[in-house]
Amino acid sequence: MQNVKGTFDFRAGEQVLRNRIRAVLERQFALYDFEPLETPILNEQSLLASKYAGGEEIMQEMYRLSDQGGRNLGLRYDLTVPFAKVVAIHPGLEMPFKRYEIGKVFRDGPVKRGRLREFTQCDADVAGTEGPEAETELLQLASDAFGALGIDAAVRWNNRRFLGELLAGLGVGEEAAASVMLTLDKLDKIGVDGVAAELGDKKLDPQAAAGIVRLIREEAPGFEELVERFSLGAARGVMEVRQLQKLLDGTGLGPICRFDPFLSRGLSFYTGTVYELFAADGSFRSSLASGGRYDSIIGKLAGREDIRYPAVGISFGLDSIMELMRTARGDTAAQAVRFVPIGDTLAETLSAAALFRGAGIRARVESGSRKLKRTLAAAAAKGARFVVLIGEEEAAAGQVRLKHMRTGEETVGPIELALHTVERSEGI
Amino acid sequence: MQNVKGTFDFRAGEQVLRNRIRAVLERQFALYDFEPLETPILNEQSLLASKYAGGEEIMQEMYRLSDQGGRNLGLRYDLTVPFAKVVAIHPGLEMPFKRYEIGKVFRDGPVKRGRLREFTQCDADVAGTEGPEAETELLQLASDAFGALGIDAAVRWNNRRFLGELLAGLGVGEEAAASVMLTLDKLDKIGVDGVAAELGDKKLDPQAAAGIVRLIREEAPGFEELVERFSLGAARGVMEVRQLQKLLDGTGLGPICRFDPFLSRGLSFYTGTVYELFAADGSFRSSLASGGRYDSIIGKLAGREDIRYPAVGISFGLDSIMELMRTARGDTAAQAVRFVPIGDTLAETLSAAALFRGAGIRARVESGSRKLKRTLAAAAAKGARFVVLIGEEEAAAGQVRLKHMRTGEETVGPIELALHTVERSEGI
Repeated sequence: MQNVKGTFDFRAGEQVLRNRIRAVLERQFALYDFEPLETPILNEQSLLASKYAGGEEIMQEMYRLSDQGGRNLGLRYDLTVPFAKVVAIHPGLEMPFKRYEIGKVFRDGPVKRGRLREFTQCDADVAGTEGPEAETELLQLASDAFGALGIDAAVRWNNRRFLGELLAGLGVGEEAAASVMLTLDKLDKIGVDGVAAELGDKKLDPQAAAGIVRLIREEAPGFEELVERFSLGAARGVMEVRQLQKLLDGTGLGPICRFDPFLSRGLSFYTGTVYELFAADGSFRSSLASGGRYDSIIGKLAGREDIRYPAVGISFGLDSIMELMRTARGDTAAQAVRFVPIGDTLAETLSAAALFRGAGIRARVESGSRKLKRTLAAAAAKGARFVVLIGEEEAAAGQVRLKHMRTGEETVGPIELALHTVERSEGI
Repeated sequence: MQNVKGTFDFRAGEQVLRNRIRAVLERQFALYDFEPLETPILNEQSLLASKYAGGEEIMQEMYRLSDQGGRNLGLRYDLTVPFAKVVAIHPGLEMPFKRYEIGKVFRDGPVKRGRLREFTQCDADVAGTEGPEAETELLQLASDAFGALGIDAAVRWNNRRFLGELLAGLGVGEEAAASVMLTLDKLDKIGVDGVAAELGDKKLDPQAAAGIVRLIREEAPGFEELVERFSLGAARGVMEVRQLQKLLDGTGLGPICRFDPFLSRGLSFYTGTVYELFAADGSFRSSLASGGRYDSIIGKLAGREDIRYPAVGISFGLDSIMELMRTARGDTAAQAVRFVPIGDTLAETLSAAALFRGAGIRARVESGSRKLKRTLAAAAAKGARFVVLIGEEEAAAGQVRLKHMRTGEETVGPIELALHTVERSEGI
């Protein structure tokens, strides 16, 4: 009896933490007026395998299955394709359409740190907004969410259209550009030498390849410097970078955002801005959130090449954020008040606990054969502050015995008085 | 492009409702001191197909798949087997172990009203408690939860051990009893004549079959009357029914609970109490929650027939509860405050919206090419109470224009003043 490799059970404090992260994100999504959406995990394979969907690498990692009716199904591998589906099958949807979805996605890939077989994504996407205000709002949202979680996050961003213009300036043709971007995406993992080797294997103009490698060896060349050096002038990608930079500065996000001209994000469906968010102190290697603009995928998935749905999104990785926060976590949730029947007082004890819960106080009825002494010791070990004891005499008199675990003091009185004491003590 | 049969997208107001139901249940689970658990959807087929798990009918409805490593996997069809797994693989777990889990489960069965291919279960289970206080707490919890949701719910309950004793009194042997219970479970669907026909097909003593049919034709025979008529005396099931009835009465649950001596719940793993909860007015056919006691399954799943883990649980059907509430729903969520840039004031507008969100107010930035008049008309149609307009003159002076949508009145002033006005108006 064991779990499938790459899947885990999340228990108790760990799951409390996951629920907290989820609640913080849901609150931010709501404050930014994203509406909730829930799409199925089971999907038609033909949708998931559309050539406009996940791309070749993800296709290899898609779980495939068939149902009793012989239909070919797949488990979703992201929340973007389901989002695009909803937009595509509701042509009357009011634009901009802003939705969030939190749910499990599945990938049958190699298992390593931070890459699970099933994991939870928390996505917010906007369809129908062309301008950089959509990107800015998503980064504001991320900044607010990480702030609320006590995480100091930093943004790396780029624009794939600009990266294309830069590569063109280096002599890389449009056809080769996508493949070069896939290689650049691995820069963090394989280093400059790795990138140089991979570029050498491609049928690139050797001078272009050398130019790329020389450029990435430079220490953080500035954006305007690159524009000037490669005479990119007022190319569209250049303009887009300038517009977004202006909004980032104007909304106070500038200091946490770093423009990185080589950030490409592997997926070829990104058409403009791309970004990744990390822990600012570099203590955690995996990205905590990422996303970008994909302006052509929805129309193509809908089979409507005539319609362009500009779209931009961000995806938070619940599992990565949990990993990062796990060490910092302190379980400060108030311990339940314990209720212990002594003798034949189960009904009175269950009713007393119900009264506390009605007042919003967590209550746990301890019954069974354990001796009272051991029950009290266990409650103390868990950090419980109060135990309510109900013996037959107390029950007959409509009273309870409230034990303060810190002092050992016991007071006998009506249950309402005990509730009042606990409420006052917990500041409710 | 379409959804898989038996799966649905839940959008906007519908999903807001689902999230509300979920939040109410999570709050009750926490108040009753159940800890959160999240288990994987993907499981080893051998676990899910254990002869102690779901039973033959569910096995036929299990989605099976294999991964790239050729492992045989299945999608979970309930949350009980994963719960039993967690208990079984953590022998040191402190008892009683109380957990809740909310998650998707999958069944490749016939699609009809209320039976989806993938649906959300919300389960609370206790392992390690023998006594009826566990059942009572779960029914208290359900009563509190439905109360918080504004649903008038009623409980039907029985005890399968008692039902076995009753059947024995009617001349049904132990071997035939499980099969007879499966038939009795269909009473609501196929009626007394249907049950009579099914019983006729079994190799039952004709007199026993006739006795059962005669009994279920009677108008609600009382529990104590049955005990006396069939001389069941102090059989264990009889005692268990009496004990639980005492606690239900003692905790005030009596009036909403109806003992039904023929309720059997199909699954053979239930060993004692079983219950189902419905809308009290009978307006909704499907059960809203159900569960019962299963004292032998965990030990058997663990391959430890020597250890008995008494266990009892309740499962809320999110989809059924949503169906019931859908008609009664009124979307009373406050509409977002709209922020509209006029001219080159995007950065100021995004920053102003951020200030409102920081104060807990939902804010939506309206940008794009739509004419101001149409934007205001759309905001009014949505029921928005306030729109914040930021023109270049206002931005230069550090001010905004707050439009009260109900009166049409506009006031120009610092953003903080506008925020104060909105806060006061919304009672924040």
